[in-house]
Amino acid sequence: MSHLPTTTKAWILQNPPVKNIILGNSESSTFSIQEQTLPPLDKGDLLVQPIYLSNDPAQRGWIQRKLDEGRLYVTPVLQGQAMATHAVARVLATAGPTSTWKEGDLVYTTTTGWRQYAVVKEEDVRSLRSIPGLSPSLYVGLFGVPGLTAYFGVTEVLKLQRGQSLVVSAAAGAVGNVVVQYAKKVIGASKVIAIAGTPEKCAWIKEMGADIALNYKAPSFKQDLNAATEGFVDAYFDNVGGEILDQMLTRIKQHGRVAACGAISNYTHDNLDAANLRNWFEIITSRLTVKGFIVLDYFPRAGEAVEALSKAVEEGKMTVEGAETLVETDFSNIPEVWLRLFQGQNVGKLVTQIAGA
Amino acid sequence: MSHLPTTTKAWILQNPPVKNIILGNSESSTFSIQEQTLPPLDKGDLLVQPIYLSNDPAQRGWIQRKLDEGRLYVTPVLQGQAMATHAVARVLATAGPTSTWKEGDLVYTTTTGWRQYAVVKEEDVRSLRSIPGLSPSLYVGLFGVPGLTAYFGVTEVLKLQRGQSLVVSAAAGAVGNVVVQYAKKVIGASKVIAIAGTPEKCAWIKEMGADIALNYKAPSFKQDLNAATEGFVDAYFDNVGGEILDQMLTRIKQHGRVAACGAISNYTHDNLDAANLRNWFEIITSRLTVKGFIVLDYFPRAGEAVEALSKAVEEGKMTVEGAETLVETDFSNIPEVWLRLFQGQNVGKLVTQIAGA
Repeated sequence: MSHLPTTTKAWILQNPPVKNIILGNSESSTFSIQEQTLPPLDKGDLLVQPIYLSNDPAQRGWIQRKLDEGRLYVTPVLQGQAMATHAVARVLATAGPTSTWKEGDLVYTTTTGWRQYAVVKEEDVRSLRSIPGLSPSLYVGLFGVPGLTAYFGVTEVLKLQRGQSLVVSAAAGAVGNVVVQYAKKVIGASKVIAIAGTPEKCAWIKEMGADIALNYKAPSFKQDLNAATEGFVDAYFDNVGGEILDQMLTRIKQHGRVAACGAISNYTHDNLDAANLRNWFEIITSRLTVKGFIVLDYFPRAGEAVEALSKAVEEGKMTVEGAETLVETDFSNIPEVWLRLFQGQNVGKLVTQIAGA
Repeated sequence: MSHLPTTTKAWILQNPPVKNIILGNSESSTFSIQEQTLPPLDKGDLLVQPIYLSNDPAQRGWIQRKLDEGRLYVTPVLQGQAMATHAVARVLATAGPTSTWKEGDLVYTTTTGWRQYAVVKEEDVRSLRSIPGLSPSLYVGLFGVPGLTAYFGVTEVLKLQRGQSLVVSAAAGAVGNVVVQYAKKVIGASKVIAIAGTPEKCAWIKEMGADIALNYKAPSFKQDLNAATEGFVDAYFDNVGGEILDQMLTRIKQHGRVAACGAISNYTHDNLDAANLRNWFEIITSRLTVKGFIVLDYFPRAGEAVEALSKAVEEGKMTVEGAETLVETDFSNIPEVWLRLFQGQNVGKLVTQIAGA
């Protein structure tokens, strides 16, 4: 590239939120745009251009203003820092010919933040295996955090076996649809019950392989879930916490398992009552095993997951059609697109594209 | 025995309780005394006389009037049936010379109920290994349900290793004191933090081996527990549920374990708010494993536990001195003694003796 950028725009965390995200680029908004000078490349540095930005519910937790002295499990984004993201980026320049990378390579990065351009360390990027016919954007979806979360949650945390039954919440989301597909079509679960929040999502997740899809906003939901889990189920993949988790503790077989993956209702502090649990005692009486997990712990085994998932796609057992919502947009709209995650409309993985592929 | 009894008194569940137990032997009392005729002995039957009755918090659950359609994990005691108990009993008569047992043998039974005499099936009794210097009453304590609960909870559910740290609630109870002793003096835990409900209990459980004992009724308890678990702990043996559990979810190391054993605050329906959990999210962020368990599942391995525990006593690593409160009493006082379990005064195992040993 003849004219390398020397500056970049960055979306900065201006006001760490307690409850709502405030859009815009003013003094009161959660994020604001800053013009930054790019540092010169030292040995081991790469200049990259983010193309596909990942949108993940966990990002909400990274910026939450802490109201108590609770422990942190990821380095948070501090006030004044660029908003963090996972991304697929293109290498624009390396620090010299000894680099592992070359101009034009696509890489997986976790350190660009919401920037147009960024200087990152070689040790912080991962190579992408190019899969014919598949978009590299899948590396922030099926082959990224949500896909790996689904894969390790089902195979390692729940150890789901052929012929077993499973309930999964937030089933039409980036993690949930992979859980449904992998459990049903690769492992061969006897029954996959998907919980989602609109009739459209329910229809879609049934197309993706769910045997039963339940809308948790329907007035009959509690009875529907009891009926769908008649005879009880082997495992529950929990993406939401709260009331659905509470009910599910009563719907699992003796010695069954719960994978505690997400609690989206807890990311903001406006819904604490709904997060309360009344049925803990069921964990004892039904001898349940509840395992909390975070996909970061499984990153060293990412290759195994990408291989299993891409094989399933190649063999036609899983579909990526419609499991990604790709939004091509201007840099200035990044927060607005990200916020759609929490508005409950999109299905599958929400990806923001901010540069040509 | 020349004059075998042909009738027995029995304490019957007259009014399954919703909240409080009502003592006495009147129309409104929870239990009432009934005179019953003993059936003749068929092949495989034994006539036994209960000597030591076990008092267990779980019995409260067996008789609780159900307010919802929740699942049951033990056969409940129904209205009109004799109150169930585990007991050490003496064989008064067998059905014939082919019996495994003979007159005078002491056996462990789960089917006599609160009776003076009972006809039980041979298949429902277990032999006791006589240990020189130790009272057979230990078979409803250290070598019975509470001891086995402690042993399998620590060794199998928590898989506690030498050098690891542990918190245990209801630590001065029948299960808790064995957890403290076994973890500290047999396994070699680095730190055992015991939670109990009076200064006397705290003093006693420290004598039993706890490094730190905290009174949960002290105004400074929350801060005390945070200070005692500075640096976090490897494992939590939960006998109580509720608020202490909720706080403990924030005090366990990443990848730590919780053994969910009891939730005494849930046995009655008068304390539902205190049983609510706000910190479920910590299970995810700290990657905790929570395992519910019930000692019944480990009964086939009782021999292993009795051997390990009696060896620890013989080697002087565990003490039974003071770890049993033996109440010799008349048959008519059985419910009154049992109720002391829930009044929070006794330490160790509460045993009711209703006949000469």
